[in-house]
Amino acid sequence: MFADHSLEAIKIVAQQSFEAFKIYRNTSLKQRADLMRSIAVELEACGDELIQTAMQETNLPEVRLRGERARTIFQLTSYAAACEKGEAIEARIDTADPNKNPPKPDIRKMMIGLGPVVVFGSSNFPFAYSTAGGDTASALAAGCSVIVKAHPAHAKTSTIVAKAIDKAVVNNNLPANIFQHVYGASFEVGKALVTNEYIKAVGFTGSFIGGKQLFDWANQRKEPIPVFAEMGSINPVFLLNEKLSSSAKEIAQQYAASITLGVGQFCTNPGLIIGLKSDVLNLFIDELGKAIHSTQSAKMLHEGIARAYQEKKTKALQQNDVVLVNESELINDGISGNPTIATVSAKTFLKNTVLHQEVFGPYSLVVQCDDMSEMNLIAEHLEGQLTSTIIGTIDEIQQNDSLIQSIKNICGRIILNGVPTGVEVCYSMQHGGPFPATTDSRFSAVGPDAIKRFVRPISFQNWPDELLPDELKNANPLNIWRIVNNEFTKNAIP
Amino acid sequence: MFADHSLEAIKIVAQQSFEAFKIYRNTSLKQRADLMRSIAVELEACGDELIQTAMQETNLPEVRLRGERARTIFQLTSYAAACEKGEAIEARIDTADPNKNPPKPDIRKMMIGLGPVVVFGSSNFPFAYSTAGGDTASALAAGCSVIVKAHPAHAKTSTIVAKAIDKAVVNNNLPANIFQHVYGASFEVGKALVTNEYIKAVGFTGSFIGGKQLFDWANQRKEPIPVFAEMGSINPVFLLNEKLSSSAKEIAQQYAASITLGVGQFCTNPGLIIGLKSDVLNLFIDELGKAIHSTQSAKMLHEGIARAYQEKKTKALQQNDVVLVNESELINDGISGNPTIATVSAKTFLKNTVLHQEVFGPYSLVVQCDDMSEMNLIAEHLEGQLTSTIIGTIDEIQQNDSLIQSIKNICGRIILNGVPTGVEVCYSMQHGGPFPATTDSRFSAVGPDAIKRFVRPISFQNWPDELLPDELKNANPLNIWRIVNNEFTKNAIP
Repeated sequence: MFADHSLEAIKIVAQQSFEAFKIYRNTSLKQRADLMRSIAVELEACGDELIQTAMQETNLPEVRLRGERARTIFQLTSYAAACEKGEAIEARIDTADPNKNPPKPDIRKMMIGLGPVVVFGSSNFPFAYSTAGGDTASALAAGCSVIVKAHPAHAKTSTIVAKAIDKAVVNNNLPANIFQHVYGASFEVGKALVTNEYIKAVGFTGSFIGGKQLFDWANQRKEPIPVFAEMGSINPVFLLNEKLSSSAKEIAQQYAASITLGVGQFCTNPGLIIGLKSDVLNLFIDELGKAIHSTQSAKMLHEGIARAYQEKKTKALQQNDVVLVNESELINDGISGNPTIATVSAKTFLKNTVLHQEVFGPYSLVVQCDDMSEMNLIAEHLEGQLTSTIIGTIDEIQQNDSLIQSIKNICGRIILNGVPTGVEVCYSMQHGGPFPATTDSRFSAVGPDAIKRFVRPISFQNWPDELLPDELKNANPLNIWRIVNNEFTKNAIP
Repeated sequence: MFADHSLEAIKIVAQQSFEAFKIYRNTSLKQRADLMRSIAVELEACGDELIQTAMQETNLPEVRLRGERARTIFQLTSYAAACEKGEAIEARIDTADPNKNPPKPDIRKMMIGLGPVVVFGSSNFPFAYSTAGGDTASALAAGCSVIVKAHPAHAKTSTIVAKAIDKAVVNNNLPANIFQHVYGASFEVGKALVTNEYIKAVGFTGSFIGGKQLFDWANQRKEPIPVFAEMGSINPVFLLNEKLSSSAKEIAQQYAASITLGVGQFCTNPGLIIGLKSDVLNLFIDELGKAIHSTQSAKMLHEGIARAYQEKKTKALQQNDVVLVNESELINDGISGNPTIATVSAKTFLKNTVLHQEVFGPYSLVVQCDDMSEMNLIAEHLEGQLTSTIIGTIDEIQQNDSLIQSIKNICGRIILNGVPTGVEVCYSMQHGGPFPATTDSRFSAVGPDAIKRFVRPISFQNWPDELLPDELKNANPLNIWRIVNNEFTKNAIP
């Protein structure tokens, strides 16, 4: 339905994006925030058509998609508010000191946009991490122009959203090409975008193979560029027995719900649960299995994802020593995914890294440890993760410090007595983690700090006040927080 | 004199560094600051021996080395102060909201150290960007353990400094291996360090070839890691005629001093001056040439650097259309570098990228443009730079906005009516720039913000106050600035 852009067309799009960036980078924080709020309004104005189209393309239920659109609108408006407040600008001012030897010049620093950003949206969040999602919002707030490659699995949805963004751009009298939307089911389009000289950064949400390929292309360029790829994660959950004993059934119910939420198609889905062999762990496994068994299969995003789920799950279940605990009935329609729980010994898990790989869907593996030292070994040797969760009492946390330290070392967010699914959009959110969870653990893909991925600092030395950007003028006309002569302040400089 | 570490020894060093990191990452901001201040004290206590050794190894004069040690001490103490203030921690707190649907959990985020950091010091700053230099100070402030590979050109100096750091580590009752010092003249030692699984980041100051090689090794690892390589820069200076006319002789004197400062061995040395063909430009070139002619040759850091200077300069001068303006007398001792000025037309410069390459030493090329559109073309097409400088009146800046925008796009620091040499150690300093000036334009190698290179965020979700790090506790016992529910504050949370 939507033909791939030609490689020639991609070249033109990239150059147009740079031309638009040259104008957009000089917009005020308020202009950017206004644009983002306009996009939010236009997204709402897409009404039922957008929801219905997304339902057809993703099999996600209406209530979920309405909720996700609301989340996307919240992202746009909350990042807009953050943009206006200027925290991501990181303004720093050191005033001149003519009495120093040699004399110290006046120097002022702020963040500016990196340049044109390419966004590859995710299949599992057709709104919140797609065309007008977190990466696009972050890049626009940063002062960057954006090229979105429509996700082939929801290209119609993406087109409706792109038109809404176009309308907002026009309404705000900004250059049309600060946002461009391209189609490309083939990998050549993605490669042409990432390797184009005008492109200065990439946002991606998807598989490890896809993200790593973009990362490699970006680093092999003559001028390497940053790639923020959010890839796989199995989000380990560590069960400590005292806490588990107090409410094994409730925790099992809570985890059955978390594992099967959205047919398990969340990057924070708990795909690994690590416990200590004991009667209470047996009880937990039994209850979790029963709850999973009674959960209905449901349609996944598309047939390719359903097929991959069955294949990866089958491969995991075929590994030596892995035992199926329970599963729900499979609807054999080629697109549904049936929730499944398996279990394995820690010894086997530590040896077999196939079991460390993400099975994207409603699947979780319970690893049974002989003792705490085995649990420690797993925490020490797991690959990088978006999240880790600990189920434990305060006493247990205090008594197992080395375990907690090892867990902190492998993840971006550490949850106590909760579930990893549910990613709040707020400053304190770290959605990211050590490789291979993401390609850059130093940044978050969610929350206003996500803006920081697409900026770089520039210093102005010895510039008179009238030539400085508003962010750095003596009077602080934007009323933003700045570090002035080593102190945080909103005060003007006398 | 110092044998290279074996590859087996490097493996042990890296693992020891990780073991030490596991303890050091839990130190308080105050403990880290105390360590850094102790290192400063020990550096001072090295006394004349350190200065004399560095003089022998680098040919740098005593006054310069005493100044550089003072700068290094200032770096350590000012980063220590910043470390204690906690700005680099970027604490963010969002308190729970049980009335939200679904209920919003309590989430708190802060920066933690990436892990063991390898530092490759520079030859031209034996103190300030070497063993106890900016990278080491940043990494220690970030909570990372450090392995320094001694620069082969000043291995004795490096050894004295390393012993001073060791003493400070012992005096602060910290694990000995949070700082380790290794030798390696061969590239294999560097490769073994950068590709070791325990190493999580790299700091480097040196040549493009060296930095790019480390960057490639780091990105080809199974788990890629960030490399902060500060590489070459020719630091273009754009001369606008009105300002130049007002003081051509003074500006020529100022630039002759900047070009020859430290025998031109600064990464911010102005190696490229772009002007508009005119009588005043001729006057400037003539004066600059005369001043350069009357500057004495001086010993460079070592014979390899002196040889490279002569070779690269000769290659530049041999390019078609390049004309020698003036030079000072060469002392034929195999180690001295003679200041040299050449000139070329903009047309040739734009076509011949050999002329865009850094000639490390007291050399600068004056490019003569027919008109402003040629100057604009140069600004648009130059490779990434640490700094750019504009010599112009306020009117000229206002009338040449597209030139200023293009210049901003290619550099990290933009100086008005000054010289690029002289890099203040302060928050507002951006010492970095688009590739190939550095491998990561998003960070500075100088100033307290340099700490941010070696940290990553971690979120704590639903943790009780007593289990949280001090940085995130309700009472704010460290009295640091935090973003609490979207607002900057030092207030405690009720």
